[in-house]
Amino acid sequence: MRARHKPWAEAYINERPDIVIPEPETLKGRWQEEFGNDRPIHIEVGTGKGRFITGMAEANPDINYIGIEMFRDIIVTAVQRAEEADKPANLRLLNVDAGRLSEFFAPGELGRVYLNFSDPWPKTRHAKRRLTHDNFLRLYESVLPPGGEVHFKTDNRGLFEYSLMNMTDYGMQLRYVSLDLHADNPEWNIMTEYEEKFSSMGQPIYRLEAAFRNRTDEGE
Amino acid sequence: MRARHKPWAEAYINERPDIVIPEPETLKGRWQEEFGNDRPIHIEVGTGKGRFITGMAEANPDINYIGIEMFRDIIVTAVQRAEEADKPANLRLLNVDAGRLSEFFAPGELGRVYLNFSDPWPKTRHAKRRLTHDNFLRLYESVLPPGGEVHFKTDNRGLFEYSLMNMTDYGMQLRYVSLDLHADNPEWNIMTEYEEKFSSMGQPIYRLEAAFRNRTDEGE
Ligand SMILES: C[S@@+](CC[C@H](N)C(=O)[O-])C[C@H]1O[C@@H](n2cnc3c(N)ncnc32)[C@H](O)[C@@H]1O
Ligand SMILES: C[S@@+](CC[C@H](N)C(=O)[O-])C[C@H]1O[C@@H](n2cnc3c(N)ncnc32)[C@H](O)[C@@H]1O
Repeated sequence: MRARHKPWAEAYINERPDIVIPEPETLKGRWQEEFGNDRPIHIEVGTGKGRFITGMAEANPDINYIGIEMFRDIIVTAVQRAEEADKPANLRLLNVDAGRLSEFFAPGELGRVYLNFSDPWPKTRHAKRRLTHDNFLRLYESVLPPGGEVHFKTDNRGLFEYSLMNMTDYGMQLRYVSLDLHADNPEWNIMTEYEEKFSSMGQPIYRLEAAFRNRTDEGE
Repeated sequence: MRARHKPWAEAYINERPDIVIPEPETLKGRWQEEFGNDRPIHIEVGTGKGRFITGMAEANPDINYIGIEMFRDIIVTAVQRAEEADKPANLRLLNVDAGRLSEFFAPGELGRVYLNFSDPWPKTRHAKRRLTHDNFLRLYESVLPPGGEVHFKTDNRGLFEYSLMNMTDYGMQLRYVSLDLHADNPEWNIMTEYEEKFSSMGQPIYRLEAAFRNRTDEGE
């Protein structure tokens, strides 16, 4: 995702610690305290400009949402969007690299992980950067409970093909697959920025839900 | 697949026992004798009019092929096609229901199973008729060696989505997935009758290769 350099972004973000948590590692194991309730916490990795996570927070007040985006000049738009939505009480943003997920969340602390239109990294030598690579799956598994789910949508055929193979190889169970989400037109779908753009160009949107298996089930 | 009733089909087939094996159960465990060599044997379940299986037999002389089609008025066209191709020595046809596969083949006797444009049976109450339902997967597994593969292509989105979920749930490993086979345009692809029709209408063709896992590997 491209963004012009925004010299004002740093100050704008720092002035809103109620939206963009400044030191998320200090909340590890204590996120329900931060939200002030014991509702499930769902995160989006690679939130971009925040259309999805803000829309989800508004549509589902009984779930807490955390959007994670590593680029300041991008996440700042998500912060503005959260402001315009009157700062939903169940929404927080983190301006961090998701590779550090286990520094911020305790095992089982999260209820679900969303990945939307993640960077495809088509070259094999960059496979480790894909957000559905084993290294990331291991991270998600470390912060989800047994049976916890990853929900992933993308227009990128190569990344989706890779993810189907790699997630099932990892041992995850496919609980939902759509190879043309917008033809199915589910009423619960909330579009992301990329989704609006690519679906209006007529490209099919792929979507899956995959669950980590309860490893203690496996004859141990 | 529709076919006009062909009153001449029965006699035509019976007169060609070198192509359409009359009592395949008598060859169970002895198919390499029938072919006169010890090359791998690949089958196609639901062969239809035989374009794929004849093309494969011609393209791959080192593999033996058996096409299975339950409708006489349809398989008769495959027989004609085999005649026109001068009866490839590595090709046989069976006019039987694939639900009886284990009556015809011994455990591990086959090297691979092809499914092409299988009937979709979209209603949930007909799920058992889908050729990627557990009942059929169990049958394929019973005649393949450990690690044996099923190669499946279709234009039918619902059937492909179901198959991705069901085959991996069964424990199969996805070794290849393409969500637009003709965009990838692999030089080894041999088109079926349905594939020609649906791809010329601009529909994407989905394809997967899935392997049964070596169950003895799993900590027994
Ligand atoms: C292609 S954009 C999609 C944005 C948004 N999800 C959408 O669908 O419109 C991917 C975003 O993921 C972010 N991203 C990629 N890897 C990340 C990581 N390891 N940690 C946090 N953000 C990441 C990128 O900076 C980029 O903004
Ligand atoms: C939709 S047609 C596709 C034919 C061909 N594979 C193609 O791609 O052009 C499916 C075929 O599978 C056959 N078939 C379905 N179930 C079968 C079974 N249990 N045993 C044998 N043939 C079957 C049908 O009779 C039909 O001819």
